[in-house]
Amino acid sequence: MTDFDTDTAPDASGAFRLTDRWNALAGINGGYMLAVCVRALGRAMPFPDPLVISGFFLRPGTVGPAEVPVSVLRAGRTTAFGEATLVQGGKQVLRITGAFSTLSGDGPSYSGSKPPSLPPPEECVAPTLRARSPELSISEQVEYRAVTLPGWVTGSPSGNPASEFWIRLGGGREPDLWSLPFLVDAAPPAAMELGVLSTTIELTVHLRAHPAPGWLACRAVTSHLSGGYYEEDFEIWDSSGALVAQSRQLGLVLK
Amino acid sequence: MTDFDTDTAPDASGAFRLTDRWNALAGINGGYMLAVCVRALGRAMPFPDPLVISGFFLRPGTVGPAEVPVSVLRAGRTTAFGEATLVQGGKQVLRITGAFSTLSGDGPSYSGSKPPSLPPPEECVAPTLRARSPELSISEQVEYRAVTLPGWVTGSPSGNPASEFWIRLGGGREPDLWSLPFLVDAAPPAAMELGVLSTTIELTVHLRAHPAPGWLACRAVTSHLSGGYYEEDFEIWDSSGALVAQSRQLGLVLK
Repeated sequence: MTDFDTDTAPDASGAFRLTDRWNALAGINGGYMLAVCVRALGRAMPFPDPLVISGFFLRPGTVGPAEVPVSVLRAGRTTAFGEATLVQGGKQVLRITGAFSTLSGDGPSYSGSKPPSLPPPEECVAPTLRARSPELSISEQVEYRAVTLPGWVTGSPSGNPASEFWIRLGGGREPDLWSLPFLVDAAPPAAMELGVLSTTIELTVHLRAHPAPGWLACRAVTSHLSGGYYEEDFEIWDSSGALVAQSRQLGLVLK
Repeated sequence: MTDFDTDTAPDASGAFRLTDRWNALAGINGGYMLAVCVRALGRAMPFPDPLVISGFFLRPGTVGPAEVPVSVLRAGRTTAFGEATLVQGGKQVLRITGAFSTLSGDGPSYSGSKPPSLPPPEECVAPTLRARSPELSISEQVEYRAVTLPGWVTGSPSGNPASEFWIRLGGGREPDLWSLPFLVDAAPPAAMELGVLSTTIELTVHLRAHPAPGWLACRAVTSHLSGGYYEEDFEIWDSSGALVAQSRQLGLVLK
């Protein structure tokens, strides 16, 4: 059992707990809490695969006990819908709704874009985020490889909120449909290249295929920042060159 | 009062009803039902503007009575969250969650893309969809203008699921934050250029600014179709050149 598997599941007594191993710049990482909810919801659904999940971040999470009540909204013939809520101290922290089904590769296919073009991970650099920001425990859980360090890491935001990089869970933990909702939110926001700090209001993730083992190639882009909000689109491509997850989140710029 | 305003609000006694004026190729249009729910939720929220809405389409809607119970999940200092459910015959049809706030133009801004480059609407063609498909009552409610007719309209899907066009509500009804969640779903899917018919599983819309009066320029793109699902990204730009709404939906290909 890796930290990811342990920290996103209830303990033997059925109790949930958010741990201190997933802290990002603005507190507990949203993708980690999302993964807790998706796994909890998955255990209640009559189909094996999450297809699309939308999560609204109502409050910051805190390290400590949590409850995750789930309910099935509809179980159809090929698709089922449900919701889960992460509750701490009697207050709602995260509310997710999701559709589940059985993912297959059947039917027509079309792709209008390509995976990121990156040199192999072993030829890339690994940003040493935690040495710069000791609170970033999440950087011990996820490995990143990029061609160059992000501008904001060295104090010089590039002004271009777009990046491509490799990512994988630590400890040799291979990707699956349960870790992808975490991984789409596991990298620092592309908008940091615009010099802003932010928090997530809402994140929707589409799970498009079961990922093959190995490193995942990511593409993060923010196209519009205005009125204190921006969107971030995130794609994850697996080692076979298949698109396995797409997400979009609405971020709120912190003053 | 235009048809849109009448058909998305309760009557004087507080009762909701889905009318037959919003039928698309696969039944009652999802964006219409979404607009009903967003308006209902808006009346309960302590902030004036919808910011991000996610809707899950659990069942097809039917023409006739509906109930739309709403609840506030959290009312914070600057953002409030709530949910609404469209119920018909005791069954859930559409479940939405939304965040509301007060949209302003304050703070830093960045734009990495431009509005569609289209000739003026009066130099474009108007597809006569209803003459081809009499069930398409929605085409009486929305005006479209494009440089060329979509390929699927003339029986020759182009294979390129991307398009740019003008759109506006009929009857001189100017756009606002309440009609945009409808309009992002009011055009035939871009994926029809791949020769597929589809229905929406989930749609998320970000409202980015109050739209200026006039025609709206739209961009619809599907980048990935596989395993029976595709995403569609939709942008709406107003007459001042501002991005006012972005949406992404997960579509299910109908067999």
